[in-house]
Amino acid sequence: MWIQSQITLRPRARGFHLVTDEIVEGVPELGSLSVGIALVFMQHTSASLTLNENASPDVRRDFAAWFDRAVPDGAGYFTHTLEGDDDMPAHIKAALTDTSLVIPVRDGRLALGTWQGIYLCEHRDNGGARRLIVTAFGDE
Amino acid sequence: MWIQSQITLRPRARGFHLVTDEIVEGVPELGSLSVGIALVFMQHTSASLTLNENASPDVRRDFAAWFDRAVPDGAGYFTHTLEGDDDMPAHIKAALTDTSLVIPVRDGRLALGTWQGIYLCEHRDNGGARRLIVTAFGDE
Amino acid sequence: MWIQSQITLRPRARGFHLVTDEIVEGVPELGSLSVGIALVFMQHTSASLTLNENASPDVRRDFAAWFDRAVPDGAGYFTHTLEGDDDMPAHIKAALTDTSLVIPVRDGRLALGTWQGIYLCEHRDNGGARRLIVTAFGDE
Repeated sequence: MWIQSQITLRPRARGFHLVTDEIVEGVPELGSLSVGIALVFMQHTSASLTLNENASPDVRRDFAAWFDRAVPDGAGYFTHTLEGDDDMPAHIKAALTDTSLVIPVRDGRLALGTWQGIYLCEHRDNGGARRLIVTAFGDE
Repeated sequence: MWIQSQITLRPRARGFHLVTDEIVEGVPELGSLSVGIALVFMQHTSASLTLNENASPDVRRDFAAWFDRAVPDGAGYFTHTLEGDDDMPAHIKAALTDTSLVIPVRDGRLALGTWQGIYLCEHRDNGGARRLIVTAFGDE
Repeated sequence: MWIQSQITLRPRARGFHLVTDEIVEGVPELGSLSVGIALVFMQHTSASLTLNENASPDVRRDFAAWFDRAVPDGAGYFTHTLEGDDDMPAHIKAALTDTSLVIPVRDGRLALGTWQGIYLCEHRDNGGARRLIVTAFGDE
Protein backbone atom coordinates (compact mmCIF):
# COMPACT_ATOMS: atom_id res chain seq x y z
CA MET A 1 0.00 0.00 0.00
CA TRP A 2 1.40 3.36 -1.14
CA ILE A 3 0.58 6.82 0.15
CA GLN A 4 1.89 9.97 -1.54
CA SER A 5 0.81 13.49 -0.60
CA GLN A 6 2.02 17.00 -1.06
CA ILE A 7 2.05 19.19 2.04
CA THR A 8 2.61 22.94 1.93
CA LEU A 9 4.05 24.45 5.09
CA ARG A 10 2.97 28.04 5.65
CA PRO A 11 5.72 30.69 5.53
CA ARG A 12 7.87 30.82 8.65
CA ALA A 13 10.47 33.26 9.93
CA ARG A 14 14.09 32.33 9.47
CA GLY A 15 14.96 29.76 12.13
CA PHE A 16 14.04 26.29 13.33
CA HIS A 17 10.39 25.34 13.79
CA LEU A 18 8.63 22.26 15.14
CA VAL A 19 6.23 20.94 12.47
CA THR A 20 5.56 17.32 13.46
CA ASP A 21 1.83 17.85 13.94
CA GLU A 22 1.36 19.63 10.61
CA ILE A 23 3.03 16.75 8.80
CA VAL A 24 1.20 13.98 10.64
CA GLU A 25 -2.16 15.70 10.10
CA GLY A 26 -1.36 16.00 6.40
CA VAL A 27 -1.10 12.23 6.00
CA PRO A 28 -4.00 10.65 7.90
CA GLU A 29 -3.63 7.47 5.80
CA LEU A 30 -0.53 6.62 7.86
CA GLY A 31 -2.94 5.37 10.49
CA SER A 32 -3.75 2.32 8.37
CA LEU A 33 -0.16 1.01 8.19
CA SER A 34 0.80 -1.63 10.76
CA VAL A 35 4.45 -1.57 9.63
CA GLY A 36 6.25 0.54 7.05
CA ILE A 37 8.39 3.57 6.40
CA ALA A 38 7.63 7.22 5.66
CA LEU A 39 9.79 9.53 3.56
CA VAL A 40 9.35 13.27 4.19
CA PHE A 41 11.04 15.13 1.33
CA MET A 42 11.69 18.89 1.02
CA GLN A 43 11.48 20.15 -2.58
CA HIS A 44 13.71 23.19 -1.88
CA THR A 45 17.42 23.89 -1.54
CA SER A 46 17.41 26.79 0.92
CA ALA A 47 15.19 25.22 3.58
CA SER A 48 15.56 21.76 5.06
CA LEU A 49 14.42 19.27 7.69
CA THR A 50 15.94 17.57 10.70
CA LEU A 51 14.79 15.47 13.64
CA ASN A 52 15.63 16.89 17.04
CA GLU A 53 14.46 17.78 20.52
CA ASN A 54 10.73 18.48 20.62
CA ALA A 55 10.30 20.11 24.03
CA SER A 56 12.36 23.23 24.59
CA PRO A 57 12.17 26.31 22.33
CA ASP A 58 15.68 27.13 23.63
CA VAL A 59 17.07 24.23 21.64
CA ARG A 60 15.66 25.58 18.41
CA ARG A 61 16.98 29.08 19.17
CA ASP A 62 20.42 27.62 19.89
CA PHE A 63 20.33 25.76 16.57
CA ALA A 64 19.99 29.14 14.85
CA ALA A 65 22.80 30.59 16.98
CA TRP A 66 25.21 27.83 16.00
CA PHE A 67 24.30 27.61 12.30
CA ASP A 68 24.42 31.39 11.84
CA ARG A 69 27.97 31.43 13.27
CA ALA A 70 29.16 28.36 11.37
CA VAL A 71 27.89 29.65 8.01
CA PRO A 72 27.93 33.46 8.25
CA ASP A 73 25.72 35.65 6.06
CA GLY A 74 27.75 37.60 3.53
CA ALA A 75 31.06 35.81 4.15
CA GLY A 76 33.76 37.21 1.86
CA TYR A 77 34.54 33.86 0.20
CA PHE A 78 31.03 33.48 -1.24
CA THR A 79 30.64 34.51 -4.89
CA HIS A 80 26.97 33.53 -5.38
CA THR A 81 25.59 36.71 -3.81
CA LEU A 82 23.02 37.92 -6.33
CA GLU A 83 20.06 36.63 -4.32
CA GLY A 84 21.18 38.20 -1.05
CA ASP A 85 23.60 37.60 1.80
CA ASP A 86 21.40 34.87 3.27
CA ASP A 87 21.13 32.80 0.06
CA MET A 88 24.43 30.96 -0.19
CA PRO A 89 24.52 30.23 3.58
CA ALA A 90 21.00 28.80 3.18
CA HIS A 91 22.24 26.29 0.59
CA ILE A 92 25.13 25.19 2.82
CA LYS A 93 22.91 24.89 5.91
CA ALA A 94 20.45 22.80 3.91
CA ALA A 95 23.31 20.43 2.95
CA LEU A 96 24.42 20.15 6.60
CA THR A 97 20.92 19.14 7.72
CA ASP A 98 18.42 16.95 5.80
CA THR A 99 16.41 17.20 2.62
CA SER A 100 14.84 13.76 3.30
CA LEU A 101 13.74 12.23 6.56
CA VAL A 102 13.06 8.50 6.54
CA ILE A 103 11.11 7.39 9.59
CA PRO A 104 9.85 3.94 10.57
CA VAL A 105 6.09 3.44 10.88
CA ARG A 106 4.64 1.08 13.48
CA ASP A 107 1.02 0.53 14.51
CA GLY A 108 -0.20 3.42 12.37
CA ARG A 109 2.22 5.99 13.79
CA LEU A 110 5.67 7.42 13.12
CA ALA A 111 7.95 5.46 15.47
CA LEU A 112 9.69 8.54 16.85
CA GLY A 113 11.53 8.53 20.16
CA THR A 114 9.92 10.33 23.10
CA TRP A 115 11.88 13.53 22.54
CA GLN A 116 12.02 13.55 18.75
CA GLY A 117 10.17 16.05 16.61
CA ILE A 118 10.41 17.17 12.99
CA TYR A 119 12.00 20.59 12.48
CA LEU A 120 11.48 22.82 9.49
CA CYS A 121 14.85 24.57 9.09
CA GLU A 122 14.05 27.85 7.33
CA HIS A 123 17.35 29.35 6.24
CA ARG A 124 16.08 32.37 4.26
CA ASP A 125 14.92 35.70 5.66
CA ASN A 126 11.84 35.48 3.45
CA GLY A 127 11.56 31.86 2.34
CA GLY A 128 7.82 31.77 1.76
CA ALA A 129 5.71 28.62 1.81
CA ARG A 130 7.64 25.33 1.56
CA ARG A 131 6.54 22.23 -0.32
CA LEU A 132 7.03 18.71 1.03
CA ILE A 133 6.24 15.36 -0.55
CA VAL A 134 5.38 12.63 1.94
CA THR A 135 5.63 9.09 0.57
CA ALA A 136 4.81 6.15 2.78
CA PHE A 137 4.25 2.48 2.19
CA GLY A 138 3.87 -0.65 4.20
CA ASP A 139 1.49 -3.39 5.23
CA GLU A 140 -2.00 -2.76 6.50
CA MET B 1 8.31 -9.05 3.27
CA TRP B 2 8.74 -6.67 6.21
CA ILE B 3 11.20 -6.92 9.09
CA GLN B 4 11.07 -4.57 12.08
CA SER B 5 13.22 -4.97 15.20
CA GLN B 6 14.33 -2.88 18.10
CA ILE B 7 18.03 -3.04 18.95
CA THR B 8 19.49 -1.59 22.14
CA LEU B 9 23.13 -0.57 21.93
CA ARG B 10 24.95 -0.87 25.26
CA PRO B 11 26.22 2.40 26.80
CA ARG B 12 29.36 3.76 25.17
CA ALA B 13 31.79 6.51 26.10
CA ARG B 14 31.42 9.83 24.32
CA GLY B 15 32.91 9.46 20.85
CA PHE B 16 32.50 7.50 17.64
CA HIS B 17 32.12 3.71 17.74
CA LEU B 18 31.92 1.03 15.08
CA VAL B 19 28.69 -0.97 15.57
CA THR B 20 28.07 -2.67 12.22
CA ASP B 21 28.28 -6.20 13.65
CA GLU B 22 25.91 -5.49 16.54
CA ILE B 23 23.32 -4.18 14.12
CA VAL B 24 23.67 -6.97 11.57
CA GLU B 25 23.48 -9.63 14.30
CA GLY B 26 20.33 -7.98 15.63
CA VAL B 27 18.48 -8.54 12.34
CA PRO B 28 19.26 -12.08 11.16
CA GLU B 29 16.12 -12.01 8.95
CA LEU B 30 18.01 -9.73 6.53
CA GLY B 31 19.65 -12.90 5.25
CA SER B 32 16.42 -13.91 3.53
CA LEU B 33 16.12 -10.78 1.34
CA SER B 34 17.53 -11.06 -2.19
CA VAL B 35 16.93 -7.36 -2.86
CA GLY B 36 15.65 -4.59 -0.62
CA ILE B 37 16.51 -1.70 1.65
CA ALA B 38 17.19 -1.38 5.37
CA LEU B 39 16.45 1.67 7.51
CA VAL B 40 18.46 2.00 10.72
CA PHE B 41 16.80 4.67 12.87
CA MET B 42 18.08 6.24 16.11
CA GLN B 43 15.29 7.14 18.56
CA HIS B 44 17.38 9.82 20.32
CA THR B 45 18.39 13.42 19.71
CA SER B 46 21.80 13.55 21.40
CA ALA B 47 23.32 10.48 19.76
CA SER B 48 23.33 9.69 16.06
CA LEU B 49 24.61 7.43 13.29
CA THR B 50 26.85 7.81 10.27
CA LEU B 51 28.56 5.56 7.72
CA ASN B 52 32.31 5.95 7.52
CA GLU B 53 35.71 4.27 7.45
CA ASN B 54 35.64 0.88 9.19
CA ALA B 55 39.34 0.12 9.55
CA SER B 56 41.34 2.68 11.48
CA PRO B 57 40.47 3.73 15.05
CA ASP B 58 42.40 6.95 14.28
CA VAL B 59 39.60 8.02 11.98
CA ARG B 60 37.03 7.71 14.75
CA ARG B 61 39.27 9.61 17.17
CA ASP B 62 39.73 12.38 14.58
CA PHE B 63 35.96 12.59 14.13
CA ALA B 64 35.71 13.45 17.83
CA ALA B 65 38.55 15.98 17.51
CA TRP B 66 36.83 17.82 14.68
CA PHE B 67 33.28 17.74 16.05
CA ASP B 68 34.36 18.85 19.53
CA ARG B 69 36.09 21.89 17.99
CA ALA B 70 33.26 22.70 15.57
CA VAL B 71 30.58 22.57 18.28
CA PRO B 72 32.31 23.45 21.55
CA ASP B 73 30.95 22.37 24.93
CA GLY B 74 29.66 25.30 26.92
CA ALA B 75 29.87 27.87 24.12
CA GLY B 76 28.65 31.26 25.36
CA TYR B 77 25.92 31.59 22.73
CA PHE B 78 24.03 28.49 23.96
CA THR B 79 21.08 29.18 26.27
CA HIS B 80 19.82 25.59 26.69
CA THR B 81 22.37 24.68 29.38
CA LEU B 82 20.25 23.09 32.09
CA GLU B 83 21.25 19.54 31.16
CA GLY B 84 24.97 20.27 31.06
CA ASP B 85 27.61 21.77 28.81
CA ASP B 86 27.60 18.71 26.53
CA ASP B 87 23.83 18.68 25.91
CA MET B 88 23.24 21.43 23.35
CA PRO B 89 26.39 20.50 21.37
CA ALA B 90 25.06 16.93 21.31
CA HIS B 91 21.85 18.08 19.62
CA ILE B 92 23.77 20.05 16.98
CA LYS B 93 26.21 17.21 16.31
CA ALA B 94 23.26 14.82 15.90
CA ALA B 95 21.79 17.17 13.27
CA LEU B 96 25.12 17.35 11.41
CA THR B 97 25.32 13.55 11.18
CA ASP B 98 22.42 11.09 10.68
CA THR B 99 19.39 9.96 12.62
CA SER B 100 18.47 7.52 9.81
CA LEU B 101 20.70 5.38 7.65
CA VAL B 102 19.12 3.87 4.55
CA ILE B 103 21.23 1.08 3.09
CA PRO B 104 20.60 -1.15 0.06
CA VAL B 105 20.25 -4.91 0.66
CA ARG B 106 21.53 -7.40 -1.90
CA ASP B 107 21.82 -11.19 -1.65
CA GLY B 108 20.90 -11.17 2.02
CA ARG B 109 23.48 -8.59 3.08
CA LEU B 110 23.83 -4.85 3.53
CA ALA B 111 25.45 -3.68 0.27
CA LEU B 112 28.13 -1.61 2.00
CA GLY B 113 31.35 -0.59 0.27
CA THR B 114 34.56 -2.36 1.32
CA TRP B 115 35.54 0.38 3.76
CA GLN B 116 32.12 1.36 5.06
CA GLY B 117 30.97 0.67 8.60
CA ILE B 118 28.15 1.98 10.78
CA TYR B 119 29.21 4.40 13.50
CA LEU B 120 27.33 5.10 16.69
CA CYS B 121 28.04 8.78 17.36
CA GLU B 122 27.66 9.20 21.12
CA HIS B 123 27.64 12.91 21.83
CA ARG B 124 26.90 12.87 25.58
CA ASP B 125 29.36 12.26 28.39
CA ASN B 126 26.92 9.77 29.89
CA GLY B 127 24.45 8.91 27.18
CA GLY B 128 23.46 5.47 28.44
CA ALA B 129 21.99 2.71 26.26
CA ARG B 130 20.69 3.82 22.86
CA ARG B 131 17.61 2.46 21.11
CA LEU B 132 17.49 1.80 17.36
CA ILE B 133 14.62 0.61 15.19
CA VAL B 134 15.70 -1.41 12.17
CA THR B 135 13.07 -1.69 9.42
CA ALA B 136 13.81 -3.69 6.28
CA PHE B 137 11.75 -4.93 3.42
CA GLY B 138 12.28 -6.45 0.03
CA ASP B 139 11.88 -9.60 -2.03
CA GLU B 140 12.88 -13.05 -0.85
CA MET C 1 8.60 -4.05 -8.44
CA TRP C 2 12.29 -3.73 -7.50
CA ILE C 3 15.08 -2.10 -9.46
CA GLN C 4 18.71 -2.33 -8.37
CA SER C 5 21.64 -1.09 -10.48
CA GLN C 6 25.25 -0.21 -9.96
CA ILE C 7 26.38 3.07 -11.52
CA THR C 8 30.02 4.08 -11.79
CA LEU C 9 30.66 7.81 -11.94
CA ARG C 10 33.77 8.73 -13.91
CA PRO C 11 36.62 10.36 -11.96
CA ARG C 12 36.03 14.01 -11.13
CA ALA C 13 38.25 16.75 -9.76
CA ARG C 14 37.92 17.59 -6.09
CA GLY C 15 34.80 19.69 -5.67
CA PHE C 16 31.04 19.55 -6.14
CA HIS C 17 29.57 18.27 -9.42
CA LEU C 18 26.05 18.04 -10.80
CA VAL C 19 25.34 14.39 -11.75
CA THR C 20 21.54 14.17 -11.91
CA ASP C 21 21.47 13.22 -15.59
CA GLU C 22 24.10 10.50 -15.26
CA ILE C 23 22.12 8.90 -12.46
CA VAL C 24 18.73 9.14 -14.15
CA GLU C 25 20.13 7.72 -17.40
CA GLY C 26 21.64 4.83 -15.45
CA VAL C 27 18.22 3.69 -14.23
CA PRO C 28 15.82 3.85 -17.18
CA GLU C 29 13.49 1.38 -15.40
CA LEU C 30 12.41 4.24 -13.11
CA GLY C 31 10.16 5.33 -15.96
CA SER C 32 7.83 2.42 -15.27
CA LEU C 33 7.04 3.36 -11.65
CA SER C 34 3.89 5.40 -11.09
CA VAL C 35 4.71 5.87 -7.39
CA GLY C 36 7.69 4.80 -5.33
CA ILE C 37 11.00 5.80 -3.82
CA ALA C 38 14.58 5.69 -5.06
CA LEU C 39 17.66 5.24 -2.85
CA VAL C 40 20.95 6.50 -4.32
CA PHE C 41 23.78 5.08 -2.19
CA MET C 42 27.50 5.96 -2.32
CA GLN C 43 29.76 2.98 -1.52
CA HIS C 44 32.67 5.19 -0.42
CA THR C 45 33.66 7.14 2.69
CA SER C 46 35.65 10.02 1.16
CA ALA C 47 33.12 11.11 -1.45
CA SER C 48 29.43 11.75 -0.86
CA LEU C 49 26.15 13.04 -2.27
CA THR C 50 23.80 15.90 -1.55
CA LEU C 51 20.79 17.57 -3.16
CA ASN C 52 21.19 21.26 -3.91
CA GLU C 53 20.84 24.08 -6.39
CA ASN C 54 21.07 22.84 -9.99
CA ALA C 55 21.53 26.08 -11.92
CA SER C 56 24.54 28.15 -10.93
CA PRO C 57 28.11 26.78 -10.98
CA ASP C 58 28.90 29.54 -8.44
CA VAL C 59 26.92 27.64 -5.84
CA ARG C 60 29.02 24.53 -6.30
CA ARG C 61 32.23 26.57 -6.13
CA ASP C 62 31.03 28.23 -2.93
CA PHE C 63 30.27 24.82 -1.44
CA ALA C 64 33.95 23.95 -1.90
CA ALA C 65 35.00 27.31 -0.41
CA TRP C 66 32.96 26.73 2.75
CA PHE C 67 33.77 23.05 3.26
CA ASP C 68 37.51 23.58 2.71
CA ARG C 69 37.49 26.27 5.40
CA ALA C 70 35.31 24.33 7.83
CA VAL C 71 37.41 21.15 7.59
CA PRO C 72 40.95 22.27 6.69
CA ASP C 73 43.43 19.96 4.96
CA GLY C 74 46.26 18.98 7.25
CA ALA C 75 44.76 20.44 10.46
CA GLY C 76 47.10 19.82 13.39
CA TYR C 77 44.51 17.89 15.43
CA PHE C 78 44.20 15.10 12.84
CA THR C 79 46.23 11.96 13.54
CA HIS C 80 45.03 9.81 10.59
CA THR C 81 47.41 11.42 8.08
CA LEU C 82 49.01 8.44 6.34
CA GLU C 83 46.86 8.74 3.23
CA GLY C 84 47.48 12.47 2.75
CA ASP C 85 46.32 15.81 4.08
CA ASP C 86 43.04 15.58 2.16
CA ASP C 87 42.03 12.16 3.51
CA MET C 88 40.73 12.81 7.01
CA PRO C 89 38.91 16.02 5.93
CA ALA C 90 37.27 13.92 3.19
CA HIS C 91 35.85 11.53 5.78
CA ILE C 92 34.45 14.40 7.87
CA LYS C 93 32.98 16.18 4.84
CA ALA C 94 31.32 12.93 3.78
CA ALA C 95 29.70 12.67 7.22
CA LEU C 96 28.46 16.28 7.02
CA THR C 97 26.75 15.64 3.67
CA ASP C 98 24.98 12.42 2.55
CA THR C 99 25.95 8.85 1.79
CA SER C 100 22.32 8.03 0.88
CA LEU C 101 19.74 10.11 -0.92
CA VAL C 102 16.15 8.95 -0.69
CA ILE C 103 13.94 10.62 -3.29
CA PRO C 104 10.24 10.15 -4.02
CA VAL C 105 9.25 8.81 -7.45
CA ARG C 106 6.07 9.98 -9.15
CA ASP C 107 4.81 9.31 -12.69
CA GLY C 108 8.05 7.63 -13.70
CA ARG C 109 10.35 10.46 -12.54
CA LEU C 110 12.29 11.57 -9.49
CA ALA C 111 9.98 14.10 -7.80
CA LEU C 112 12.67 16.73 -7.39
CA GLY C 113 11.87 20.40 -6.87
CA THR C 114 12.49 22.80 -9.76
CA TRP C 115 15.91 23.84 -8.48
CA GLN C 116 17.09 20.54 -7.04
CA GLY C 117 19.91 18.50 -8.54
CA ILE C 118 22.10 15.65 -7.30
CA TYR C 119 25.67 16.63 -6.43
CA LEU C 120 28.63 14.30 -6.36
CA CYS C 121 30.78 15.70 -3.55
CA GLU C 122 34.33 14.60 -4.38
CA HIS C 123 36.45 15.30 -1.32
CA ARG C 124 39.77 13.76 -2.47
CA ASP C 125 42.36 15.33 -4.75
CA ASN C 126 42.47 12.08 -6.73
CA GLY C 127 39.37 10.14 -5.79
CA GLY C 128 39.02 8.11 -8.96
CA ALA C 129 35.78 6.56 -10.20
CA ARG C 130 32.97 6.35 -7.63
CA ARG C 131 30.49 3.50 -7.28
CA LEU C 132 26.80 4.05 -6.52
CA ILE C 133 24.02 1.56 -5.95
CA VAL C 134 20.58 2.77 -7.00
CA THR C 135 17.68 0.82 -5.50
CA ALA C 136 14.12 1.75 -6.39
CA PHE C 137 10.76 0.16 -5.87
CA GLY C 138 7.15 1.06 -6.22
CA ASP C 139 3.98 0.36 -8.15
CA GLU C 140 3.80 0.23 -11.92
